[in-house]
Amino acid sequence: MTGSLTVVGTGPGKPELMTPATQAAIAQASDLVGYGPYLDRLPAARADQCRHASDNRVELDRARQALSLAASGRNVVVVSGGDPGVFAMAAAVFEAVEGGDPAWCGLDIRVEPGVTAMLAAAAEVGAPLGGDFCAISLSDNLKSWTTIERRLKAAAEADFVIALYNPASKARPHQLARAFDLLRSVKAAETLVLFVRAAGTAEARVVAAPLATADASVADMRTLVIIGASTTRQVGRWIYTPRSERGSVS
Amino acid sequence: MTGSLTVVGTGPGKPELMTPATQAAIAQASDLVGYGPYLDRLPAARADQCRHASDNRVELDRARQALSLAASGRNVVVVSGGDPGVFAMAAAVFEAVEGGDPAWCGLDIRVEPGVTAMLAAAAEVGAPLGGDFCAISLSDNLKSWTTIERRLKAAAEADFVIALYNPASKARPHQLARAFDLLRSVKAAETLVLFVRAAGTAEARVVAAPLATADASVADMRTLVIIGASTTRQVGRWIYTPRSERGSVS
Repeated sequence: MTGSLTVVGTGPGKPELMTPATQAAIAQASDLVGYGPYLDRLPAARADQCRHASDNRVELDRARQALSLAASGRNVVVVSGGDPGVFAMAAAVFEAVEGGDPAWCGLDIRVEPGVTAMLAAAAEVGAPLGGDFCAISLSDNLKSWTTIERRLKAAAEADFVIALYNPASKARPHQLARAFDLLRSVKAAETLVLFVRAAGTAEARVVAAPLATADASVADMRTLVIIGASTTRQVGRWIYTPRSERGSVS
Repeated sequence: MTGSLTVVGTGPGKPELMTPATQAAIAQASDLVGYGPYLDRLPAARADQCRHASDNRVELDRARQALSLAASGRNVVVVSGGDPGVFAMAAAVFEAVEGGDPAWCGLDIRVEPGVTAMLAAAAEVGAPLGGDFCAISLSDNLKSWTTIERRLKAAAEADFVIALYNPASKARPHQLARAFDLLRSVKAAETLVLFVRAAGTAEARVVAAPLATADASVADMRTLVIIGASTTRQVGRWIYTPRSERGSVS
């Protein structure tokens, strides 16, 4: 088979945060497959380039469509936001390969890394991911809430900085509040919580609050939430986590 | 004060993985401050651009130098590899601000996000970071080994994918083997371990092994180690972590 499939991420939003490697992959594609709003971010298509826009939450269907196109000889690019390997399309593509036509294993499939949302969110406020950290998706579409709570508790007890992806959606309005309740039982009341909306775009907006009073309703689908470690602190207008666990400046 | 300081990351190595925003910041700088090998990756300087190369492991000195230059009115860019907020220079800059001249709080300090090593490493093999994951630096220069072990154990017990930065250096040859020993006491013998060397460069090389027999001496300073979750698996030539905790493909 001569087709190919490349999974890319457009980064957090601004074109200046999309890597040149991803720009080149998109420019060379015969077919672009992705969630409509991500495709809309891209520059105008060449006349001979096909765009296949789909709705949100149909990742496996989208992945199968892309694999079928590649198997038919097309040079397909699957377009995610952020980094395609972090709570995005790359895993869905390999799930589709595993469950699909055995011939798909022979395709030329590549992943291009990108700037994932937590890195853009961190950069908006300083360096809150300066120590060990973890990334957890609060969506329980594909895993149980029990698993999410177990991971939140483990991360809090081991004093990781915690980045929460998918903190809220219309279908899941109450989960972030439940996560905060759990975290309050483990972490200090003054732990810094950052709500970073539309990070890496011209509309970026940051709200910081102590965990004790952090209001989960501040978060929406475009928000990345960062919960500090015990050492995460403010200096001037910035928030950062020192590299040292004691937070001492030597 | 009219000077500025921007902390950037060059990405994992290839120029095509450096964001246009970072390229622009570097092009506009009057002064570039960084570890020599990172500065060497950059295109040739303008005649009026000063480069201040320093050795490794003098991050705070380098940060103070950059802040002093900015305070004197220069437009300074501090150059890290990867993303500057992940085990790199951004936290060191804010540590230096906190412990330094109070006037530094008035400076225009920004952070530009980049592609951090674990994203490039993951892209080389497929999508191993497809589920919840954490990032831990194995360096105990700035935190205790006890803390590192506590975090490894918590991450393993809660079934996070684990990305290990700084797995080994000449000064710390034995820590990765100790980490593997600890992880073997918690995780299944067949858990996939990925050693990704020089990810995001033309010399990228991947070694995969089950945790039971993974050989820590495979890793060096340029290696990023990823330890899979219980669901991380191989399909065709790729390794990925399904989005679902059960790993089922529906």
